[in-house]
Amino acid sequence: MTSILITGIGELTTNDDELGRLASAAIVLDGDRVAWVGSAASAPDADERVDVAGRAVLPGWVDSHTHLVFAGDRTAEFEARMAGAAYQAGGIAVTVGATRAATDTELADGLRRHLAEAAAQGTTCVETKTGYGLTVEDEVRAARIAAEQADEVTFLGAHLVPPGTDAREYLDLVCGPMLVAVAPHVRWADVFCETGAFDEEQSRRVLRAAADQGLGLRVHGNQLGRGPGVRLAVEEGAASVDHCTHLADSDIAALAGSTTVATLLPACDLSTRQPLPPGRELLDAGATVALASNCNPGSSYTSSMAFCVATAVLQMGLSVEEAVRAATWGGARALRRETGDGAVGVLRPGARADVHVLDAPSVTHLAYRPGVPLTHAVWRKGMRVR
Amino acid sequence: MTSILITGIGELTTNDDELGRLASAAIVLDGDRVAWVGSAASAPDADERVDVAGRAVLPGWVDSHTHLVFAGDRTAEFEARMAGAAYQAGGIAVTVGATRAATDTELADGLRRHLAEAAAQGTTCVETKTGYGLTVEDEVRAARIAAEQADEVTFLGAHLVPPGTDAREYLDLVCGPMLVAVAPHVRWADVFCETGAFDEEQSRRVLRAAADQGLGLRVHGNQLGRGPGVRLAVEEGAASVDHCTHLADSDIAALAGSTTVATLLPACDLSTRQPLPPGRELLDAGATVALASNCNPGSSYTSSMAFCVATAVLQMGLSVEEAVRAATWGGARALRRETGDGAVGVLRPGARADVHVLDAPSVTHLAYRPGVPLTHAVWRKGMRVR
Ligand SMILES: [Zn+2]
Ligand SMILES: [Zn+2]
Repeated sequence: MTSILITGIGELTTNDDELGRLASAAIVLDGDRVAWVGSAASAPDADERVDVAGRAVLPGWVDSHTHLVFAGDRTAEFEARMAGAAYQAGGIAVTVGATRAATDTELADGLRRHLAEAAAQGTTCVETKTGYGLTVEDEVRAARIAAEQADEVTFLGAHLVPPGTDAREYLDLVCGPMLVAVAPHVRWADVFCETGAFDEEQSRRVLRAAADQGLGLRVHGNQLGRGPGVRLAVEEGAASVDHCTHLADSDIAALAGSTTVATLLPACDLSTRQPLPPGRELLDAGATVALASNCNPGSSYTSSMAFCVATAVLQMGLSVEEAVRAATWGGARALRRETGDGAVGVLRPGARADVHVLDAPSVTHLAYRPGVPLTHAVWRKGMRVR
Repeated sequence: MTSILITGIGELTTNDDELGRLASAAIVLDGDRVAWVGSAASAPDADERVDVAGRAVLPGWVDSHTHLVFAGDRTAEFEARMAGAAYQAGGIAVTVGATRAATDTELADGLRRHLAEAAAQGTTCVETKTGYGLTVEDEVRAARIAAEQADEVTFLGAHLVPPGTDAREYLDLVCGPMLVAVAPHVRWADVFCETGAFDEEQSRRVLRAAADQGLGLRVHGNQLGRGPGVRLAVEEGAASVDHCTHLADSDIAALAGSTTVATLLPACDLSTRQPLPPGRELLDAGATVALASNCNPGSSYTSSMAFCVATAVLQMGLSVEEAVRAATWGGARALRRETGDGAVGVLRPGARADVHVLDAPSVTHLAYRPGVPLTHAVWRKGMRVR
């Protein structure tokens, strides 16, 4: 691979405490790594040179929460919800049926299409989950397909008790043979801790079994109401607890005093006509916040991280800088990938060469110009993907 | 010009009461007009044939409220607002200064760039306003430049009393020499009826003077609080009253009993951290609703009609069908262009050949997938613009 000098950067967001935000900057990519970051005036030479003419540059989005190994269509369910029907976790079963019926190729093609769509919008690192299989065979298949394409894969056998199945028996399966079979393909395990899915005791059992298998932990918590999810995630040392729509003061305090990231999914809350999560309060308390899309065909079928950022700024009280950081560095932190060689969500020497160029002079335009497609160019692992 | 058969349409939104919404449809464009609409199976031949492979097709967006003849940058004001500063009409004066200082070419180029950006997102008919000149010479210049490019032009000398100017003297100018000089270049006149801009009596004077010059009427009303704007617009027979953020029950009843369109600008409300307008209540009462961007560098710097549609569905209680209709037919109605030869916002024989193809099987995806750029192809006046 050749080295690339990106110069003429009007505003460079590095998310690096020492580098900060630079004006008149340049960056050099070498292979799949960032080789150099600094003032355009002192930029070294490279094989190839791209002048971005004053545009803003930032790390590619890190979308740390998606469900993209799926088949089937839930447009009608969305339409019904917009006509007043309530969102219920049970809709997941529709996707489970379609996903089980799909071929490997169909699932892989669908995932590829969604990842390409996301990359074209500046998303360069994606976590995705199993959870539409819910049999040993289907969960292993989903994990295997996901691992071929996504940056991070999470086992979510504990998404829902399949209709017609005994909850106790299903939990034994998830915490036993299913976990053992899926674990080699994934880094993380997750549980949907919510009324209608898994209660506190069941969720804790899933998390402890996964930790015993050496998996990192994530939790879906506090989406549809206040519940034990956030507290449980903190107690079990989860890397992230996701949704956080309905939080008690004690939940905010628990997050602030922990290393668990609060991953907010505002597009999901809007798409289910829920309130938006208390992002401002979380930041003010000192919690670490990530923004993610929760892209899935049921509760949040968007791949637009820019939409999440704009919503966080316009409606959740985050500054543009806070929202952009949450959608890049925050997502990386939620995946424990924000430091070291090949870090994502940051632009510093040694980080992965994931670069997003906006058709705008500053990241402020992401909220100032909501809905306008502002992605001008994207490099992922040093390769131009848009 | 050649004729074009667009076939393979999965879902065709016509906004025509008789044609309705068609599946497996086709449409023929001939020159700048729609020549034929119907079932793909019985489509006539044409010089050129485009298969859109099951995609949804709808009329191009009609953005009936923008302010695009401007110069200067107000990014910092937006940032300050997102950090807690209140929105005030006085920010307009910043743009007035920059606009007066710009050359004709700079203003025309800026307008061209913004119209192209909108067209690339499916907007094929745009109204724009003067109002950043506020001298006879500068308002005429803005009207002339706008008329060269925009579909509809509105005189908004009554945007703000220029700082340092006597209000009474300025109103005499707006209703006298300025109006007379601008009138030949425009079809509409508008007044910003709001605390801090023009009161009821002043606004009525502007509207009556404009009507005497043969101009159609529009009003900026009820943006920052309840006020006389909506009532005034209805009383004076305005084609549209725009913003409608803060409405009394009597305002809703007045609109429902009138031919004045309620033009809602939700991106503006979000960008100024105002509540969203009561679109559901207006529709339930029987008022005609339009959705527009209000694209301008101060209060709403987006050109994304899709963002407005998604917001109306996700947060204002409109169905997708209602929101899409408001952003096409509703805008056309607000500009009195929804009927007759060359009608916009509709797809029927004789309508203007303004066609928007989505990268989705149905218009539902506009709200189901918020923020995802879904514009696949656009024809404006029969010419492919994307
Ligand atoms: Zn999820
Ligand atoms: Zn306006």
